[in-house]
Amino acid sequence: MAGNSFGEIFRVTTFGESHGEGLGAVIDGCPSRIGLAPEDFVRDMARRRPGRYSFDTPRKEEDRVEILSGVFTGLTTGTPITLFIRNKDVDSRPYEILRQLFRPGHGDYTYFKKYGHFDFRGAGRYSARETAARVAAGVVAGKILEPLGVKVAAYTIELGAIRVRTINMDLVEKDPFYCPDAVASERMDEAISKARKEDDSLGGIAEVRVTNCPAGLGEPVFDKLDADLARAVMSVGAVKGVEIGAGFEAARLKGSENNDPITPDGFKTNRAGGILGGISNGDEIILRAAVKPIPSIGREQDTVDRQGRAAKMKLTGRFDVSAVPRIIPVLEAMVKIVLADHYLRSKAMV
Amino acid sequence: MAGNSFGEIFRVTTFGESHGEGLGAVIDGCPSRIGLAPEDFVRDMARRRPGRYSFDTPRKEEDRVEILSGVFTGLTTGTPITLFIRNKDVDSRPYEILRQLFRPGHGDYTYFKKYGHFDFRGAGRYSARETAARVAAGVVAGKILEPLGVKVAAYTIELGAIRVRTINMDLVEKDPFYCPDAVASERMDEAISKARKEDDSLGGIAEVRVTNCPAGLGEPVFDKLDADLARAVMSVGAVKGVEIGAGFEAARLKGSENNDPITPDGFKTNRAGGILGGISNGDEIILRAAVKPIPSIGREQDTVDRQGRAAKMKLTGRFDVSAVPRIIPVLEAMVKIVLADHYLRSKAMV
Amino acid sequence: MAGNSFGEIFRVTTFGESHGEGLGAVIDGCPSRIGLAPEDFVRDMARRRPGRYSFDTPRKEEDRVEILSGVFTGLTTGTPITLFIRNKDVDSRPYEILRQLFRPGHGDYTYFKKYGHFDFRGAGRYSARETAARVAAGVVAGKILEPLGVKVAAYTIELGAIRVRTINMDLVEKDPFYCPDAVASERMDEAISKARKEDDSLGGIAEVRVTNCPAGLGEPVFDKLDADLARAVMSVGAVKGVEIGAGFEAARLKGSENNDPITPDGFKTNRAGGILGGISNGDEIILRAAVKPIPSIGREQDTVDRQGRAAKMKLTGRFDVSAVPRIIPVLEAMVKIVLADHYLRSKAMV
Amino acid sequence: MAGNSFGEIFRVTTFGESHGEGLGAVIDGCPSRIGLAPEDFVRDMARRRPGRYSFDTPRKEEDRVEILSGVFTGLTTGTPITLFIRNKDVDSRPYEILRQLFRPGHGDYTYFKKYGHFDFRGAGRYSARETAARVAAGVVAGKILEPLGVKVAAYTIELGAIRVRTINMDLVEKDPFYCPDAVASERMDEAISKARKEDDSLGGIAEVRVTNCPAGLGEPVFDKLDADLARAVMSVGAVKGVEIGAGFEAARLKGSENNDPITPDGFKTNRAGGILGGISNGDEIILRAAVKPIPSIGREQDTVDRQGRAAKMKLTGRFDVSAVPRIIPVLEAMVKIVLADHYLRSKAMV
Repeated sequence: MAGNSFGEIFRVTTFGESHGEGLGAVIDGCPSRIGLAPEDFVRDMARRRPGRYSFDTPRKEEDRVEILSGVFTGLTTGTPITLFIRNKDVDSRPYEILRQLFRPGHGDYTYFKKYGHFDFRGAGRYSARETAARVAAGVVAGKILEPLGVKVAAYTIELGAIRVRTINMDLVEKDPFYCPDAVASERMDEAISKARKEDDSLGGIAEVRVTNCPAGLGEPVFDKLDADLARAVMSVGAVKGVEIGAGFEAARLKGSENNDPITPDGFKTNRAGGILGGISNGDEIILRAAVKPIPSIGREQDTVDRQGRAAKMKLTGRFDVSAVPRIIPVLEAMVKIVLADHYLRSKAMV
Repeated sequence: MAGNSFGEIFRVTTFGESHGEGLGAVIDGCPSRIGLAPEDFVRDMARRRPGRYSFDTPRKEEDRVEILSGVFTGLTTGTPITLFIRNKDVDSRPYEILRQLFRPGHGDYTYFKKYGHFDFRGAGRYSARETAARVAAGVVAGKILEPLGVKVAAYTIELGAIRVRTINMDLVEKDPFYCPDAVASERMDEAISKARKEDDSLGGIAEVRVTNCPAGLGEPVFDKLDADLARAVMSVGAVKGVEIGAGFEAARLKGSENNDPITPDGFKTNRAGGILGGISNGDEIILRAAVKPIPSIGREQDTVDRQGRAAKMKLTGRFDVSAVPRIIPVLEAMVKIVLADHYLRSKAMV
Repeated sequence: MAGNSFGEIFRVTTFGESHGEGLGAVIDGCPSRIGLAPEDFVRDMARRRPGRYSFDTPRKEEDRVEILSGVFTGLTTGTPITLFIRNKDVDSRPYEILRQLFRPGHGDYTYFKKYGHFDFRGAGRYSARETAARVAAGVVAGKILEPLGVKVAAYTIELGAIRVRTINMDLVEKDPFYCPDAVASERMDEAISKARKEDDSLGGIAEVRVTNCPAGLGEPVFDKLDADLARAVMSVGAVKGVEIGAGFEAARLKGSENNDPITPDGFKTNRAGGILGGISNGDEIILRAAVKPIPSIGREQDTVDRQGRAAKMKLTGRFDVSAVPRIIPVLEAMVKIVLADHYLRSKAMV
Repeated sequence: MAGNSFGEIFRVTTFGESHGEGLGAVIDGCPSRIGLAPEDFVRDMARRRPGRYSFDTPRKEEDRVEILSGVFTGLTTGTPITLFIRNKDVDSRPYEILRQLFRPGHGDYTYFKKYGHFDFRGAGRYSARETAARVAAGVVAGKILEPLGVKVAAYTIELGAIRVRTINMDLVEKDPFYCPDAVASERMDEAISKARKEDDSLGGIAEVRVTNCPAGLGEPVFDKLDADLARAVMSVGAVKGVEIGAGFEAARLKGSENNDPITPDGFKTNRAGGILGGISNGDEIILRAAVKPIPSIGREQDTVDRQGRAAKMKLTGRFDVSAVPRIIPVLEAMVKIVLADHYLRSKAMV
């Protein structure tokens, strides 16, 4: 009810703050006898870590996942799995300014209004670092999807207004921006460099593609698969828009163009993005998320203090230029969590 | 869990099928002593009804809302409010074809895959008519928001690729498309006529604007206000995309452009769309929904039958050309339901 | 959240008041393709009806269950099933006294304190009549348990301090008190007659026995099967105590007496009542519910009015002498709902 | 859904195993700005610890509560509070026997049936030690109730069939059995000694009394306050029965005896146990829990192995003779959690 849980059967509750003891997730509703070990988290935690591209924030985050409960002799027990990522490297001094001033574009203002006080060190609960717990939970969700052959892959299709022209999935994991187009990737790199020099930041668009998703996932009428995916993706800090399949483009198509003809071999096109009537149709699920530019920039900005008085604010420190590459594994995690949950829900009803 | 409920405290459960006995909603969690009468529903039910624009579907729907429980001497009692809209005019013969064939772009295929059978008369549970129950529930949500001064208004900003150039809110209620731009409205009318002649359908984009929303609504980290709005809006049948504030445009802005400076008089701009860190900031909430063209068209389309064999399908009858005008009160209702729920949630935590 | 729903997957929401339009239940989460027709409800609704024993209340309740949604061609569709029981015979005049005075032992006082006003006609929402919706929902739950061979049977083991000495299940359905002991039943009949002459009412104890329940139902640590059964049974108006297996008697046993030895053929005894660690062990589930005497009696009682002033109150009309026989099908229904829900939950986790 | 969470607004999720890393609770839905420090937990954790009475189990449990999240500068932030109690002293060798054999009266058998394997070290998730997390969460619930003046006190009214004759609340905290009757306490001590010599264990009955509870807590019709209390109390491992107010005794009273007359100064008697129609009436809430004898005894018992073959089993080690004294703070904690949750729920509806 207080909002820190997601999922009905595969239920993830995250907790923790950026500069507190650490971050974690409790997963209630994971079936028993699934192999799970700390090593399983290493790859995705590393993919989320900064430092993939040259000018990235130099903070070193060691995101080692401890399993505090729910696993016995290497197998899940069906009881709550607790994952914990202890915080290191917690210099909170750069955040002292938040004791008085609200950063434009951040949750400082609304947390203060809502709660009367907040853990401003590293943005506390609304820090991008909170997504580390999501990525960890996504690894467990992935274990449920794996035997079904379901694959979830996210990649960058736009960064700093540079759009990919081709999609070569083989490039994604090696690319610093998870970009499937080598030419676009180079231009993105230039855009990042330029923005950094200008003390500015960039937004972008990520696409998520799910292959081998079985038909029949999703529940009418409010827990439609697309509705739950939209909630999951929009709940990630920097996301300002979500679309499924043809998305906003569908608004400009005619019915005769937008309908996907059905053939004995499946759907001829996939404007629906793999979901019809809120239920997966067996085709690829495709969604896109609009990611706003990171609000932390080194330029002077107008703001107010806690008493509502006008103030100027200039953040110091080194910031990411864009959330886009780091958000990729987070979006994958959220999509996996939604699918694992809906898969388990579908089993209850057979 | 099975998906037909929405909201945590103000909890709406809808039920019913298009051509069954009727449609309805049970609202659990509405505070007591709020005035509520059948007349309160008349205006919004009428706004949802077809027939606003010339070529609209001629089916006459009488959407009279009966209050089956939860109101005594004209006041809510704090116990479940049941709203029921009895179906009339239920000629199900045009749907006999669905006994064998799946309509492209509809939920026929996925409902059959998921449930093994489904009420195909009038598309049963996934009929656009299901939204009548949402609109009815939205009226009750509106009663909770009213004393706060919160106003929710939706309108059409694009239809058939025709975009509004100006927004004059005074025009909206009188316009057949809920369009705030008289010039655009005329061109929309022409586009609708043309599409109808071509046995085709059109999509569009609706915008919702919430004024006077108090700061502090929304819960970290999964039940963010924008995440819940995204789910609510995406759960409406024809919606394929949702964006908040600058939305997808934010992906192309720089941080210095996208951040809304804060002044003693409020936010200087509103690219955030009234939500920061998932919590309302007191500014206007703005969201947009991409609406796909109605999949029911009079043209021949490729499909398969229940045995998976190729087939041609040509729907007869008269269909709406676009969901856009009729979806307007539905979007308003969903936004009201989200806000009423989050408002009550916020009260529990003070 | 507002308390009118029960169950996680098989989710029952009841609504309605005793003297309003009617009572009903929405069941979300019932699997598809289960045969369901209005006739299926007739037997249990009749069993709940007054008039089984001679001096019972002469009000004639016609409890015909209408299916308003969720069934197509005689089969459930997997979407919400709405059951509705329209009220008849609604002479509310005897309740006019409740406009001012609170009946001792009833919810009048607390409903007024909580909600500021309440539907006092026939006790509105907290009327015993509310259980009609539970019995109807229990019929649907029974349909899920039937193919598993699970049987749920309740019967009276004590009424007016008269305890059964033998349990002959063959007698139960024919007995006016659902009593499995013919001798005790006669004495119960005398006790009822005597109490009625004295304008008084009687309590009793009901036992519920579940046979063929599969092992493995129940979830640690809060949704234990016994915990959910306790909640379900205690939520029935007149129940003041619940015990499982040896129950309160277990408090007086030693471990060596209370432990049920395990053998290759099953448990040698069943003091656990079929549940260990909150999970069904495959043995019979046995629980008992203490039912208080009906608070409506024809004697003068001390009370206060809405302004808190002392008053005398004497109810007129004819009342049931005991809730015990009529509560039997209600307890069965609640136990069925709990088991159906936990059965579906267990399927999600396999 | 998987059962490890309790509460709707004040939502407690417990995790952890007896001999794993530790045990803990995540509390989502605690209001912000409530003072909370590790010291706050010391008293109740100590009260739950073994060693209050002479022959108690000599294991030394150090139950220091760490706050892993949700508190900043000594005040709750409104975000999830994570409490963690790291396990010490974890000699799991005595439990090796559980690799093959099921202990009568324990959850070994049902956990194995349900999950296929389980963490048998120290009984893992269904260990009595799990209640440490509940006690910790209860401390936070108590912080919400404190400003209202609500007091929750539990005490032993029966142990080894010895019933208290008087209730002197001043004795409770000093008494090794939380017993409010000094004479009975001595006899309980003898009974404990005797049972220990006989390698046996004892059950008992605990009573919980809530003073200053405001009227109006509890929600019709399934989340009645008594129903939620019954679930909460029955969810504690050893509890086999729950009763409110007159409880099972009410089954033997007449309406004229059981009804509590209402006067301008409140209720003349309190057979209702402070709850009418499922809603608190402002009077003291009184409930009792039947606690079975601890199933771990040093005598040889019949059981089967994992392959279903007959076996004899004799547990070694030192066991508690009775759960009763240690369960006292656990019952208090559960009642506090229920009340805190319903109090916050009631605030949402005003």
